[in-house]
Amino acid sequence: MNAMKIGIAGLGTVGGGVAKAFAKSGEMLGVRAGTPLEIVAVCDRDEAKREAFEAPQKFDDVRALAASNADLIVELIGGENGAAPLLVEEALKAGKHVVTANKAMMARHGARLAALAEQHGRALKFEAAVAGGIPIVKSLRESLMTYGISAVRGILNGTCNYILTQMEATGRSFADVLKDAQALGYAEADPELDVGGGDSSHKLALLTALAFGVKPDLDAVAVQGIRHITPEDIGFAREFGYRIKLLGIAKKTAQGIDQRVQPSMVRAGTPLADVDGVLNCVVVDANEAGSFFFEGRGAGECATANAVIADIVDIARGNAGSVFGLPSASLLALSAAPSGSAASAFYLRFQVLDVPGVLAEIAGHLAQWRVSIESMIQRGRAPGEAVSIVMITHETKQADVERALATIAASRNVIAQPCLIPMESK
Amino acid sequence: MNAMKIGIAGLGTVGGGVAKAFAKSGEMLGVRAGTPLEIVAVCDRDEAKREAFEAPQKFDDVRALAASNADLIVELIGGENGAAPLLVEEALKAGKHVVTANKAMMARHGARLAALAEQHGRALKFEAAVAGGIPIVKSLRESLMTYGISAVRGILNGTCNYILTQMEATGRSFADVLKDAQALGYAEADPELDVGGGDSSHKLALLTALAFGVKPDLDAVAVQGIRHITPEDIGFAREFGYRIKLLGIAKKTAQGIDQRVQPSMVRAGTPLADVDGVLNCVVVDANEAGSFFFEGRGAGECATANAVIADIVDIARGNAGSVFGLPSASLLALSAAPSGSAASAFYLRFQVLDVPGVLAEIAGHLAQWRVSIESMIQRGRAPGEAVSIVMITHETKQADVERALATIAASRNVIAQPCLIPMESK
Repeated sequence: MNAMKIGIAGLGTVGGGVAKAFAKSGEMLGVRAGTPLEIVAVCDRDEAKREAFEAPQKFDDVRALAASNADLIVELIGGENGAAPLLVEEALKAGKHVVTANKAMMARHGARLAALAEQHGRALKFEAAVAGGIPIVKSLRESLMTYGISAVRGILNGTCNYILTQMEATGRSFADVLKDAQALGYAEADPELDVGGGDSSHKLALLTALAFGVKPDLDAVAVQGIRHITPEDIGFAREFGYRIKLLGIAKKTAQGIDQRVQPSMVRAGTPLADVDGVLNCVVVDANEAGSFFFEGRGAGECATANAVIADIVDIARGNAGSVFGLPSASLLALSAAPSGSAASAFYLRFQVLDVPGVLAEIAGHLAQWRVSIESMIQRGRAPGEAVSIVMITHETKQADVERALATIAASRNVIAQPCLIPMESK
Repeated sequence: MNAMKIGIAGLGTVGGGVAKAFAKSGEMLGVRAGTPLEIVAVCDRDEAKREAFEAPQKFDDVRALAASNADLIVELIGGENGAAPLLVEEALKAGKHVVTANKAMMARHGARLAALAEQHGRALKFEAAVAGGIPIVKSLRESLMTYGISAVRGILNGTCNYILTQMEATGRSFADVLKDAQALGYAEADPELDVGGGDSSHKLALLTALAFGVKPDLDAVAVQGIRHITPEDIGFAREFGYRIKLLGIAKKTAQGIDQRVQPSMVRAGTPLADVDGVLNCVVVDANEAGSFFFEGRGAGECATANAVIADIVDIARGNAGSVFGLPSASLLALSAAPSGSAASAFYLRFQVLDVPGVLAEIAGHLAQWRVSIESMIQRGRAPGEAVSIVMITHETKQADVERALATIAASRNVIAQPCLIPMESK
């Protein structure tokens, strides 16, 4: 039987994990694949990394790997542009299958690369790009499509979830907990891609494409990170029976698909609220088939290598299939819901000077935009000094709340940017 | 393009759901499948049911369906023996693919039918047989195999979970709640297959086969139902911070694979404990890749039809693959752990006469089998009348506890069969 020849580009943690798993369990994986699997080439710009790998061929240039005798290329270089998409394009054009963990590249160029894979009759799989080891890409692509999907929601970034969980457990500030997370290796030296929400937005754009049969559209995702969340917000959330989680949410609405990455209030005791630390989860609302909940490790050497290897075995078994579950020509351009059209209840926190009339002023501006208040807490009483006013609104459009907050923020009695957090109803 | 011609046998709720889904979304499903999908034949012994279906061919005999022009047979007749396996065998021999929701048949005859499918180069898929709409069969077969699996646990029977949830919510007895569940259609008129644990054992045998690469072995599953669980047990569980769930558990141990269906104490606040009502869930411990949790509807027209249709689309796309993820010849015979070898802590409840020395007597018998007690509660004090003694043991072998309980049950001071419930550590 002819072996499936594999080339790996990007020899970091995950690449090492894939090589180790093949060394340990390659034979069993070959039995599952129905054909032996063999790593024939590796590629990295860093010579020391190449040297650390055993492989018959070692390349420093992705073009050379794409031109090698490999049948399947594993792209673990990362990055939206540059070497990663170059390798994928060259490999597909050379008639090779591709497995990638690259969420940024797939979110930005996925539709184009899917068309290219189709044109050359090759597979392009990306299970490892979303929620690590959780088989959510395959489940959306192959298992949950009969009744269509109305919404996908998830905790898609382990770093943010770890930070929020620690802030809640310790009462410490975002900045303090971030420092610890960096020391522990749970956050990067430059944490912006994680804590700014960008990483979650890449994954959400891919989930959206799979769930709704559309081309991934990263620009249509409204993104907010977690830097502005304070221990005070987390404490108020608890009083109201909620926890704060950074959610990626994609919903079908009458006006189009609404995609948001945003800290959200999630009701305590629901599955989403109980996902702690570096875990990831995804909830799929599949209409008549009900809701499905998936939880597992969203990152790390083995969880990610597990997803990469599942894709390799799938391809070797001959399960090529469409990249996003539908032929390229059937993927629709995403029709995005207007920004701020999502309706929900909101948590609002204002830092104000405790002067007469300040509550009336805030309430007046909210009323002007038809934002009505369900409950209110005012904390701290030191005349002339700062106090917090926290409100939960009735269901209303985010755009209306934002307009009201913009006016309120301009008041001289309001001493910090108001904080707005949507309440997830499920 | 040639259509994939489908024949459906067993025209009950799920068959109706499949037909309705094709009527509504057949075109989209065909696009996903890469080929049109067409129901060309139905089969049921009941003429009224056949009449209610639109199909070019209608049969009352499964042999006729197996000999028809269908390319793929959907078996929804059910039952371990009889028409269902006859149809599946005849269909595979006639070169047709098969999709089935029949857990009893697959648990009993799965290894043989898998070999037959392989011999004829046809697919045999059974996603709908386990946990309804949750894509757990596909995930175990295709996604979570890289690092092997150490344990699979799940709430696999919605009827039992509904009854236990209601007993906890209302404090009412098993018998009362069962009556309501029957009235509501959540339990069958003959509830034994559900509440006796048999249905869960079928599903567990299939999960075991998929997780550990073995032939399903129904006889190796130790089965206990929920009839003996009392509101008192549920109340004590709550005091200890636990909930009682009927779990199917398959674990790799040094002495072989341990498969049990048994009411278990699950720590409150863990994902398993929070699965309420008719939902199902499965936890997969995938060694270095971590634990994965799946939750969703375990039964019902649409959840089950969703799983059936996913299998049909998979086959139409050309994703045949091995029935249990490995070629038949590679499926090992299951080496079962000796009965009662599983070690855990246990909850024990004794109904005793409140006479001097009864506690010493119980403690003495337990000590004889090296069962040591971590905590104890004695409730009710009415000299000469019945009181409950509840104990939590340290970790010990189930067989040792059972031996001690057999001796204790024989005491004239012990007025009912002692109740034993293992504590799940995770």
